[in-house]
Amino acid sequence: MPYNRLMSLFSEISEQPERIKYLLTSQRKNVERIAGEIQKRNIEYIFLTARGTSDNAGRYANYLLGAMNGLPLALATPSLFTYYKKPPKLINALVVGISQSGKSPDIVSVLEEGKRQGCMTLAVTNDAKSPLARTSDFVLDIYAGEEKAVAATKTYTTELTAIAMLSAALNEDKKAWSELEKISVWMKEALKQSSFIAEAVQRYRYIDQTVVLGRGFNYATAFEWALKLKELTYIIAEPYSSADFAHGPIALVESGYPVCAVAARGKVFNSMLEMLKRLHSDISAELIVISNDKRALSLAQVPLKIPIETPEWLSPLVGILPAQLFAYHLTIAKGYDTEQPRSIRKVTETK
Amino acid sequence: MPYNRLMSLFSEISEQPERIKYLLTSQRKNVERIAGEIQKRNIEYIFLTARGTSDNAGRYANYLLGAMNGLPLALATPSLFTYYKKPPKLINALVVGISQSGKSPDIVSVLEEGKRQGCMTLAVTNDAKSPLARTSDFVLDIYAGEEKAVAATKTYTTELTAIAMLSAALNEDKKAWSELEKISVWMKEALKQSSFIAEAVQRYRYIDQTVVLGRGFNYATAFEWALKLKELTYIIAEPYSSADFAHGPIALVESGYPVCAVAARGKVFNSMLEMLKRLHSDISAELIVISNDKRALSLAQVPLKIPIETPEWLSPLVGILPAQLFAYHLTIAKGYDTEQPRSIRKVTETK
Repeated sequence: MPYNRLMSLFSEISEQPERIKYLLTSQRKNVERIAGEIQKRNIEYIFLTARGTSDNAGRYANYLLGAMNGLPLALATPSLFTYYKKPPKLINALVVGISQSGKSPDIVSVLEEGKRQGCMTLAVTNDAKSPLARTSDFVLDIYAGEEKAVAATKTYTTELTAIAMLSAALNEDKKAWSELEKISVWMKEALKQSSFIAEAVQRYRYIDQTVVLGRGFNYATAFEWALKLKELTYIIAEPYSSADFAHGPIALVESGYPVCAVAARGKVFNSMLEMLKRLHSDISAELIVISNDKRALSLAQVPLKIPIETPEWLSPLVGILPAQLFAYHLTIAKGYDTEQPRSIRKVTETK
Repeated sequence: MPYNRLMSLFSEISEQPERIKYLLTSQRKNVERIAGEIQKRNIEYIFLTARGTSDNAGRYANYLLGAMNGLPLALATPSLFTYYKKPPKLINALVVGISQSGKSPDIVSVLEEGKRQGCMTLAVTNDAKSPLARTSDFVLDIYAGEEKAVAATKTYTTELTAIAMLSAALNEDKKAWSELEKISVWMKEALKQSSFIAEAVQRYRYIDQTVVLGRGFNYATAFEWALKLKELTYIIAEPYSSADFAHGPIALVESGYPVCAVAARGKVFNSMLEMLKRLHSDISAELIVISNDKRALSLAQVPLKIPIETPEWLSPLVGILPAQLFAYHLTIAKGYDTEQPRSIRKVTETK
């Protein structure tokens, strides 16, 4: 295995601030043009399709475009298009496909159907020449550069950034754009914890399961953190909104059970804090917490910080970095291969 | 603890065929009236909100109303309504809330907002006098009777039946109605496996994790099976579509790893069978399979049958019964309380 391949996951995690910076400058005009087209049309909702890591970017879009832009979002069920051959009637929908490779046939078939029904279609992808991009009216290239590691990291944060740019452009929101400009600085700050995390994960050498909690904008972060843990460390890591978690699955937590949580300052922070207090005081769970609030961090055995000034809507872009580092270092602590997890491929062509 | 409380989970599982029968006769006219109202209006998509078991009924609605009725479905993110106070603009949407108790404030707030924005609203609930029902224009009472066990079983299958009835009524589909009439017979057949399952679960006395696979209409079954296992047996049980599973999480399966799967005959069967073969032959996973096809059942260490004639669209209503029995008997095998799981309550009032 060549050296550059061996090192790609860590270097891809580390290069995220620069990739985001480049994306912001290179694609802003294109995003504004796409936003202008959306505003011209009578778009009533977004019909979005994605899989794996990109599906988690879709979860972020669900909250962000809902809260910031008033756009309801339906997640497509690709099998309706590929197996049942009975796609729903898409009226006044913007059909969006998110895919790093742009190659998964089921994602492409949803966009093809959207086009056939006369909808505006948009591809968010790392390959502007992919089948997905060729099928779509508009392409938002995430410019992440080649991603060599099987576990996606920089394509996730560039997908989130592309969605955040679209939201800012739709609202013509200058404050949002200026906050976007600061992401790379906040990201660099978060990445400084790498050696702290490398030591902290030793404690979890022998865990084989965990749950990952997040809510609102960071519901996506919980899913993506869990996915990295599963892909890389082979532990069962199940993501939940803290609300759904309280509806049943909390039953499985007993004293010492490891719980990962993302609790960024903002509208849902108090509800997350309440859940963390319950897990800490009533159940004595073991807590690994990503936050920019002292109260949440003080409840954690392993506190993972993001800059205090990170606004809630952008906290998923910064908050996922300590999570990626946590999964990366835990993979090494467990003695597994960080570059080529068993049984999975970089491009999965599901129908 | 009174005797009737002690026994309620098993008796609630067993009474499902009768409850479905009653629901079909008592609510058919009401469902047809609701379907007529939907057809009169210019409904372009469904905006649905639910939590826990009812959210799994929502997943069934997503596939069924998409495939059978051409209606796209967006799953609401209640925190947009309760915490962010920025609900999306709902234009030409039918707003649906599903809740056994009809009491969860976040679900009610989504329906209130739908009404405020002038949308048609529909409550699917076990309490026609609940806050959710009072908020909605139309109420579909699932008539499950009081559910005493904390783990929901009969309210899940009656919710599915209510959705299936709505689909049949929207299409004025006589064949669908006559198939619905047969569910209780198929359910009774599936329930006959109870003592076989009670013996089969002994093998899993010491498992602490599993994954649950399903696709298409039975994506919901995978989620609900997993939820029952988590609530009752405290094992980590994570649900996946077989397509998403192939995109990463399959990495955690090694020889002997227990995998639950639902593979009913129909459009997605071949893709499920392919995944089962891969798990069986390439990885030597341990398979617990619910199916009405010999090829899928023959790959399983524990084959759980549903009647061969069950049509795919109704297979989730029948297929969940062996899954409920599996979770029930495994709870007993592990020495846990089937009626009152630790840390959860029957009505969870999340905001």
